[in-house]
Amino acid sequence: MPKRITAYSNSTVKRLRSLRDKKARREEGLFLAEGLRIIAEARDSGCLPEIIAFSADGAKHPLAADIIAATEAAGGEAIETTPDILSKMSGKDNPQLLLAAFRQPETLLQAIDRSTAPLWIVAQALRDPGNLGTILRTGDAVGAGGLILVDDSADPFSVETVRASMGAVFTQAIATARWDEFIAWLRAGPGQLVGTSLKATADYLEADYHAPCFLLIGNEQQGLPEAYEQACDLLVKIPMAGRADSLNAAVAAAVMAFQVKASWRV
Amino acid sequence: MPKRITAYSNSTVKRLRSLRDKKARREEGLFLAEGLRIIAEARDSGCLPEIIAFSADGAKHPLAADIIAATEAAGGEAIETTPDILSKMSGKDNPQLLLAAFRQPETLLQAIDRSTAPLWIVAQALRDPGNLGTILRTGDAVGAGGLILVDDSADPFSVETVRASMGAVFTQAIATARWDEFIAWLRAGPGQLVGTSLKATADYLEADYHAPCFLLIGNEQQGLPEAYEQACDLLVKIPMAGRADSLNAAVAAAVMAFQVKASWRV
Repeated sequence: MPKRITAYSNSTVKRLRSLRDKKARREEGLFLAEGLRIIAEARDSGCLPEIIAFSADGAKHPLAADIIAATEAAGGEAIETTPDILSKMSGKDNPQLLLAAFRQPETLLQAIDRSTAPLWIVAQALRDPGNLGTILRTGDAVGAGGLILVDDSADPFSVETVRASMGAVFTQAIATARWDEFIAWLRAGPGQLVGTSLKATADYLEADYHAPCFLLIGNEQQGLPEAYEQACDLLVKIPMAGRADSLNAAVAAAVMAFQVKASWRV
Repeated sequence: MPKRITAYSNSTVKRLRSLRDKKARREEGLFLAEGLRIIAEARDSGCLPEIIAFSADGAKHPLAADIIAATEAAGGEAIETTPDILSKMSGKDNPQLLLAAFRQPETLLQAIDRSTAPLWIVAQALRDPGNLGTILRTGDAVGAGGLILVDDSADPFSVETVRASMGAVFTQAIATARWDEFIAWLRAGPGQLVGTSLKATADYLEADYHAPCFLLIGNEQQGLPEAYEQACDLLVKIPMAGRADSLNAAVAAAVMAFQVKASWRV
């Protein structure tokens, strides 16, 4: 049976609330997901929360009731609380009716099995949590295996990333690595590393892509460092028709990923 | 000569600061752009600010000095101020060294000349300012003529939209209209209205697109209303390989826009 909690000072409330913070997420090894849609996506992907909090209204939805029961059956903690406290935990005036804490998955590069998907996205020093989440969501849509975060990047388990991923944080493998680790790992097996660059001569529509294809997306401000471009097996250019010389990082990842996939259709 | 202002209570400081607010933007007919990159983009697109504020460091850059001089020569107001006050005006701890207020362009549908570009983006009830800005940036990159905002949408002149547009807010035509107004205007001239829908049978990679092509992008949560889908000349589907059933709105706009453009290459 869920506990009913109406005090801000309750330790579970405090713990959930602390997970908006990167340091607390790392220490606890947990992360927050908000709303029935994403939490149901998690369950359908085989992930149950360790803690789930909800308002009386939130528990009324049959799917929510199912997930709450399954969470408790698996030894997790379920708490019913007030909209006010949910609002406090989520930091939003109009909070979702459910909020849950999930165990962070392992993010070792060695846990990635490149043979499970033809396409992988590699993001270098991405700083915007929304971009990260959007790239995860796009990765799910194109059937990518996952996202490899190279260099110092935004936290893939931040509330903003999880929200923008629309649940793809539960379906895409996520790894973090230093560049030299990533390159060593990549070269120990099959894989074409593809970068986009304004300096490239190959048009992205005419290039040959080979599975497993690793799409390398550069930092929002600087793009890819020169040395990283040189490590690529293929550098392509997305032609720019207007005054701008670059695309949003999540848009560039999507345009490339969909083109790679399109090029493989017979 | 620029005035030097060090008081928060100065009326120009207050006026600039107020432009973070939608109501003030509408009343003043102005909007804010931050940073040399976007302000220089504006100047290169033929737009000078009505007011420009900068720190002593900001004025040191030759390009900034040029723009400040041009602003004053054109009868605009230039104020040198402190990093503290810039920070107050921009609402950020690390403000840009320059900040400027521009006159909002006319956003009447009737001001759009559809013959000037083969591609136009039409966004329905888009709520996220970042998505709007990203779509403007993508529109610039694909050589679209502009963005038509249908129904109740985020403000295209918000600080977040301007920032995400990376200056495309100055190069793309922007119009706002009710749906019935838009359809009447569209049907009074040539134009193919293309929507994306999960219910569509035509694959987006195999469809025929005709200029001027109007890409209709639906609201982030609900997608396109049924009636809007029915008004389209062509409905296409972007196949989803994963668990998710949709893309981020700015990503969907980009994938469609780049595919339309790709389909027109010989």
